[in-house]
Amino acid sequence: MSQFRIEHDLLGDRQVPAEVYYGVHTLRAKENFHITGTPISTYPELINALALVKQAAAQANFKLGLLEQDKHDAIVAACQAVQTGQCHEHFVVDMIQGGAGTSTNMNANEVICNLALEHMGHQRGEYQYLHPNEDVNMAQSTNDVYPTALHLAAYRSLDPLFAAMERLRDAFLQKSAEFSTYMKIGRTQLQDAVPMTLGQEFNAFATMINEDIVRLKESRKLMCDVNLGGTAIGTGITAHPDYAQLAVAALSDLSGVQLRVSGDLIEATQDCGGFLHLSGVLKRAAVKLSKLCNDLRLLSSGPRAGMGEICLPAVQAGSSIMPGKVNPVIPEVVNQVAFEVIGADMTVTMAAEGGQLQLNAFEPVIIHSLLRSMALLSNACDTLTQFCVVGITANRECLESNIERSISLVTALNPIIGYKAATSVAAEAFQTGANIRDVVLKRGLMDAETLNEVLRAESLIQPRDLRAADPA
Amino acid sequence: MSQFRIEHDLLGDRQVPAEVYYGVHTLRAKENFHITGTPISTYPELINALALVKQAAAQANFKLGLLEQDKHDAIVAACQAVQTGQCHEHFVVDMIQGGAGTSTNMNANEVICNLALEHMGHQRGEYQYLHPNEDVNMAQSTNDVYPTALHLAAYRSLDPLFAAMERLRDAFLQKSAEFSTYMKIGRTQLQDAVPMTLGQEFNAFATMINEDIVRLKESRKLMCDVNLGGTAIGTGITAHPDYAQLAVAALSDLSGVQLRVSGDLIEATQDCGGFLHLSGVLKRAAVKLSKLCNDLRLLSSGPRAGMGEICLPAVQAGSSIMPGKVNPVIPEVVNQVAFEVIGADMTVTMAAEGGQLQLNAFEPVIIHSLLRSMALLSNACDTLTQFCVVGITANRECLESNIERSISLVTALNPIIGYKAATSVAAEAFQTGANIRDVVLKRGLMDAETLNEVLRAESLIQPRDLRAADPA
Amino acid sequence: MSQFRIEHDLLGDRQVPAEVYYGVHTLRAKENFHITGTPISTYPELINALALVKQAAAQANFKLGLLEQDKHDAIVAACQAVQTGQCHEHFVVDMIQGGAGTSTNMNANEVICNLALEHMGHQRGEYQYLHPNEDVNMAQSTNDVYPTALHLAAYRSLDPLFAAMERLRDAFLQKSAEFSTYMKIGRTQLQDAVPMTLGQEFNAFATMINEDIVRLKESRKLMCDVNLGGTAIGTGITAHPDYAQLAVAALSDLSGVQLRVSGDLIEATQDCGGFLHLSGVLKRAAVKLSKLCNDLRLLSSGPRAGMGEICLPAVQAGSSIMPGKVNPVIPEVVNQVAFEVIGADMTVTMAAEGGQLQLNAFEPVIIHSLLRSMALLSNACDTLTQFCVVGITANRECLESNIERSISLVTALNPIIGYKAATSVAAEAFQTGANIRDVVLKRGLMDAETLNEVLRAESLIQPRDLRAADPA
Amino acid sequence: MSQFRIEHDLLGDRQVPAEVYYGVHTLRAKENFHITGTPISTYPELINALALVKQAAAQANFKLGLLEQDKHDAIVAACQAVQTGQCHEHFVVDMIQGGAGTSTNMNANEVICNLALEHMGHQRGEYQYLHPNEDVNMAQSTNDVYPTALHLAAYRSLDPLFAAMERLRDAFLQKSAEFSTYMKIGRTQLQDAVPMTLGQEFNAFATMINEDIVRLKESRKLMCDVNLGGTAIGTGITAHPDYAQLAVAALSDLSGVQLRVSGDLIEATQDCGGFLHLSGVLKRAAVKLSKLCNDLRLLSSGPRAGMGEICLPAVQAGSSIMPGKVNPVIPEVVNQVAFEVIGADMTVTMAAEGGQLQLNAFEPVIIHSLLRSMALLSNACDTLTQFCVVGITANRECLESNIERSISLVTALNPIIGYKAATSVAAEAFQTGANIRDVVLKRGLMDAETLNEVLRAESLIQPRDLRAADPA
Repeated sequence: MSQFRIEHDLLGDRQVPAEVYYGVHTLRAKENFHITGTPISTYPELINALALVKQAAAQANFKLGLLEQDKHDAIVAACQAVQTGQCHEHFVVDMIQGGAGTSTNMNANEVICNLALEHMGHQRGEYQYLHPNEDVNMAQSTNDVYPTALHLAAYRSLDPLFAAMERLRDAFLQKSAEFSTYMKIGRTQLQDAVPMTLGQEFNAFATMINEDIVRLKESRKLMCDVNLGGTAIGTGITAHPDYAQLAVAALSDLSGVQLRVSGDLIEATQDCGGFLHLSGVLKRAAVKLSKLCNDLRLLSSGPRAGMGEICLPAVQAGSSIMPGKVNPVIPEVVNQVAFEVIGADMTVTMAAEGGQLQLNAFEPVIIHSLLRSMALLSNACDTLTQFCVVGITANRECLESNIERSISLVTALNPIIGYKAATSVAAEAFQTGANIRDVVLKRGLMDAETLNEVLRAESLIQPRDLRAADPA
Repeated sequence: MSQFRIEHDLLGDRQVPAEVYYGVHTLRAKENFHITGTPISTYPELINALALVKQAAAQANFKLGLLEQDKHDAIVAACQAVQTGQCHEHFVVDMIQGGAGTSTNMNANEVICNLALEHMGHQRGEYQYLHPNEDVNMAQSTNDVYPTALHLAAYRSLDPLFAAMERLRDAFLQKSAEFSTYMKIGRTQLQDAVPMTLGQEFNAFATMINEDIVRLKESRKLMCDVNLGGTAIGTGITAHPDYAQLAVAALSDLSGVQLRVSGDLIEATQDCGGFLHLSGVLKRAAVKLSKLCNDLRLLSSGPRAGMGEICLPAVQAGSSIMPGKVNPVIPEVVNQVAFEVIGADMTVTMAAEGGQLQLNAFEPVIIHSLLRSMALLSNACDTLTQFCVVGITANRECLESNIERSISLVTALNPIIGYKAATSVAAEAFQTGANIRDVVLKRGLMDAETLNEVLRAESLIQPRDLRAADPA
Repeated sequence: MSQFRIEHDLLGDRQVPAEVYYGVHTLRAKENFHITGTPISTYPELINALALVKQAAAQANFKLGLLEQDKHDAIVAACQAVQTGQCHEHFVVDMIQGGAGTSTNMNANEVICNLALEHMGHQRGEYQYLHPNEDVNMAQSTNDVYPTALHLAAYRSLDPLFAAMERLRDAFLQKSAEFSTYMKIGRTQLQDAVPMTLGQEFNAFATMINEDIVRLKESRKLMCDVNLGGTAIGTGITAHPDYAQLAVAALSDLSGVQLRVSGDLIEATQDCGGFLHLSGVLKRAAVKLSKLCNDLRLLSSGPRAGMGEICLPAVQAGSSIMPGKVNPVIPEVVNQVAFEVIGADMTVTMAAEGGQLQLNAFEPVIIHSLLRSMALLSNACDTLTQFCVVGITANRECLESNIERSISLVTALNPIIGYKAATSVAAEAFQTGANIRDVVLKRGLMDAETLNEVLRAESLIQPRDLRAADPA
Repeated sequence: MSQFRIEHDLLGDRQVPAEVYYGVHTLRAKENFHITGTPISTYPELINALALVKQAAAQANFKLGLLEQDKHDAIVAACQAVQTGQCHEHFVVDMIQGGAGTSTNMNANEVICNLALEHMGHQRGEYQYLHPNEDVNMAQSTNDVYPTALHLAAYRSLDPLFAAMERLRDAFLQKSAEFSTYMKIGRTQLQDAVPMTLGQEFNAFATMINEDIVRLKESRKLMCDVNLGGTAIGTGITAHPDYAQLAVAALSDLSGVQLRVSGDLIEATQDCGGFLHLSGVLKRAAVKLSKLCNDLRLLSSGPRAGMGEICLPAVQAGSSIMPGKVNPVIPEVVNQVAFEVIGADMTVTMAAEGGQLQLNAFEPVIIHSLLRSMALLSNACDTLTQFCVVGITANRECLESNIERSISLVTALNPIIGYKAATSVAAEAFQTGANIRDVVLKRGLMDAETLNEVLRAESLIQPRDLRAADPA
């Protein structure tokens, strides 16, 4: 048996290795794009999405009487095989490629075609029985198939991220409950402010993450508008008038994602607004995660010359030179992931801006950036949950002594003694090193009982009606 | 009469010019922050929002029995005066300031206090009758007042932008109707693709802008969650338990914007997620506008050695050296505005990420970036509408000759003669310079009648059922 | 006397207000570009640079016998007047403008022409005696004049920034000397590391700033390559073969900046690499300044629940609600300036990338970004020096107690007792709260004398030869 | 033989697979950081740099009498083995890691230690004979070893990029020579401007690339300043006073790169200015490359409805639906690489800004970004050279017809007939469709001979003395 088969395209004949399922278009693309070393197969959701689109298109064309039964059956079988993970290693084109995704689409057409040919009892490459462009790509263009598959892949790749974010949120909620009675000094602008509980602080982290989940879920709805049926530029050339609706309905059924045909297919074919929007919200999530990790590192700074309010679990020795040093390596790695995601949004921004006329040629780098960011954020959230948050402990002694010595505690007395008097108390405390309680009593501004009442923990960490509490 | 009055704060006494409404805190801030030369008064919506918040707070405190009737009346009158534009020139602090907005809040407290004092029949600076901190700022902190005012200012500053975007969208829609019968060659990756109408192309621009309006309107809902009542760090210290709901209800009434108290005031006080989100969607709108202007410049390139499909109205001579040259100056200025907005999003991203613990100290640069971006985009949209889009004309001759000579027209024949034969026709046309029609007829691939039918304009610019049209 | 004069251009006649020095081109540009509200006159260095270029061009053309003596004299006189600040208010076009700077160049041509006409004894607008394009703009194009003026303006606008950075550096050096004997614990990854002096820490700030001065000075040399003489696209069309060298020599003489004609004028006319490079190095300086301010805020965090090692001078009351609170408002405002500069670099990046073929149409937003960044950084450095650094004090008690309690001190014993034993000592100290000294002595790992020797301040803060110091 | 050996660290005992050369620290780091899936071994230059540093340190310590001969010999042998590529697969830690590079340093210490142990005739893990921290890491800290290795790795990884850029530059130079007689219309702001040759246009591309090579070479000199010897925070704790100079001298010898000990080791240990600077200049190169590819795509737009001045070689079929379509896929992929590099600079910016106090914990993401950008740019340049530039052809017919019809040609007549008359000629040509030559002759503005002289190709593409050429 020959080691090669001959395939033909616009540029002439080429030997294609006998064992591969892809064809001449893929072969050329593989040779043209030595860029990142990251092939399409790195992102199985992208391959699955392509296979789903091809299957939906075949089903629609069959219903319209444009694709014969045997071809339809073979294509569907091949697409289903791909969706189970078969032949993923034959998706070999670099994720960053020229041609607006044509090479990815042709890679899918060729692999599915050859799988289908085998299903029909033919040899790979016998395109006279089933053709990658005429049959597998029937009524399709890269320019509608590729963006549609990207939308679907982006949509579904968010699921593991949501799961990871939810685990992180829940870990913070659990810690919040654990720390609900630990009083501490809140800080604004890194300066001591007024009391709160460590539980409140951790609850805010949970709220923050949850808010981002909600926003990301909203944003991913933008992925549900697809331009399938628009073909080359959105006019639907070569497609049947009923094709778009049929194909998208089939795709919704097959994928379980409720998709819609875009209202303006011409706009939808050239526009990367949805991706850019989603990228912006991923950036938001990254920024918040980074802020949260900055806080964890601050709160655990020390152990003796820092804030030292919490301890992060030690997961490795911290230093090759300083014995016993333990560093906040997990938040640090999450910060760095956030910086990657923020950088990736810049890449997406440039790519979206650079699109011209009826198509954006830079969708490959857009989807690469998005899928990479999602995967990185997922990994980062799980790493943070598992290796850090669940093991955080509080340093009660430190928290309490800070409260006791705090000057800003005087804020609680504002409604009773007034801002001006309170300022004077604060100044004395600061200069003499005394605590607020002692200065107030010494000056006779309030009696001890009222003062105790006002400075009770429960009074300090929530709004209250102070009209009952009158000064001495 | 003295030219100065003496005011006092934590740092000591200062002479404040007799004629100004602001006080010692503002004076110090004015001296401390010589940064941009852009005072708060540049953004009246921000001042109005501050006055609305102060008024709402006074009303809530009055209802709760914490603020006396006469003080309440005077503060309300002062806030209303500010909302009519009075004393805006006394909001003198630099937009970019340290202190997380404290100086802006104190500027508002002092101006409103002194206006209210006059209303009560007192002199400016007689704070024994009404105090900027104790009364005007009652139950408030910069840390809830300032973000709440920023949310409101951002919300309302979007109105003129929406109006400008709608005018731009409508101008494109009108042009789309005007150009609805102009056939042209669509382009993908800058290469000739398949036919469409110029009307369809302009309609896509309208769709694009409209989509951004919709997304921005969704995003600005995030501004409706406010942290008023959270005071210093979100725990509500110094505020009455009913204050937050009362104050926010009053603020909704006064502003006509339906606001809500955030579900987690501690999170809301430290989080800049809403601003960052909005900034990201503004960036999206800027990117799309830039893409659109890139297209206008491409389509009008020439007049003789470019695409030359449309003519932009001449609004000024184009060159100091090349006589008769006219340049696309309006799209060019809009591109540049887009680049500013994209840069501003980076600024907001850095500022949001840099927030620490219970407060983000960098909100001043965030609001400055957002309000500037909104104003720039408004100006850009109106400039584009008025000085460019409404005057665009089409170059029908050029459009038609391009269609006639186009090779990609062969795509329309795919469903009839197949991708492989079509490729061969295209190759011959490309090499010989012949047009598609002639090659197909010469080769006898289709009869003239069917060919004409398939290549009719109406057939080309939308999906169709080709089963009736069989080849020769 | 009439309130208007009539001027004519490609688009027809326009009434120009009698009192203005600019003409019809400027008038149209003023109307076309309502964008930022920031006119050219905001940046006097830019106007001066334009006047210098016009003067140099006139001198070169005169030498070549192409410009008559009286015209030359009048143009030179007008340019000199502008350089003294005359008529700056007539430079009215928006900094962000379409047309690649044509409107700025025409604004200069017109103002200088009308000033020169008056010098010749004519009326403004009597262009039959001296023409803005034919005479003032002789042998010039916007496309060489504008970039050349931008290079010069950028070059000279760095001088005040360098002066401000040097003042900041020197303030840190002075503090470094003041704090040279204050021992403290250095921190890596926010965790206690090994000893250093506060003087060393402040000296590093000075080094950092100095390094950025050096890099900026290197980068601004890129501004010395100018494309004057390239005219429209770099081919020098309409210019005399000797013109470029003569004009640039004159410009060097007049400006005191040693300029060179670019080696490839075609490349120089389309390339914004120099601006982008400079912007990147400004971004670098901003990033470093931000890092430095982050550190100042960290080191001064507290006063009681933070690191509290240094005190920043109080320049205003910190809070509208928390009496006595003082915030690090100066570093905070500097951080925000840094974020602006970082955002501006993004703007410049987009603009540089968007240039097409023989010219970059987006130079206006590039120079606007650069000049704004330079001014902001200057203001920020001076603000930081004057209102913060010079008044910083150290909290010796806190510094010393941190050293005493530090666990990482054990690092100094590595070369003597080994990393493994040191790790065990550190672990015991951490768990028991004991200090390192006591654990080592208790375990008999070293004798007291050697230990004291090794832990002497002078031994800890620099490399040393420990072979003399043997363990017990 | 056992499948595992037991190793011990601060956190306790762990089983380490018997066959691996790394130890317990690496094992933990491998488990902690499941982030990118890109291990250190992806970048051999980084591993080699680490081995060089370790070897240099060992040599210095040996010279100082601190390291025994047999240990020295074993370490040196192990480092040399690693430099030949041995054991690279044992560098398993994720490129993005927490801990400021500690895990990378420990990975190197452990692999080198175990290789050296084998060289000494011991088993892996028998650290009593040679210790990863005490011997291999002697007088070192991650905080000086890691940045030093990063500097060296960045320096040397630029060599292949320079080679690729030089090949690209040379390809453009060759094309420039080939096209030196092809006259064409230059374009500013996408509008027809004045004549030039296609050779000049391509020469500008070569100049542009060459300029970036020069700037990158300048910038990489910043990598030559290293902080080796600063140990933990730059104070040199645990190192001998002569160590830094000896170690850096050895490293220079071994690497062939002329390195220097930084003047302020404390600053050098915390500062990422050099990396940020280099990243900014890489961004600059990316921006320029993107601009260049934008131009190639514009100039080759068509084939019939675009500029069509040049043809890029077809490297693959362009469309899955449009037969015969060929797309500029190579410039497109290069654009996308540029967007990646621009995004990576944002990542580096965030990471540099986030560094705190005596160390930047985010160096891992910085070096990852830099090395990835360098590799991507190398690949992009070679792809562009090989698959695109060398095969570009010119469309002489199109170029000439554009020149003939050009209106801006009139610019050349400015010095003779004046800007005002030239404007009028241009207007007539534009309105009537006539060419400039005919209008000038018809109006009798110049005689035919002079006109021909002025419009000769050689006259148009360079400055000239027109005083000889007088109008009719």
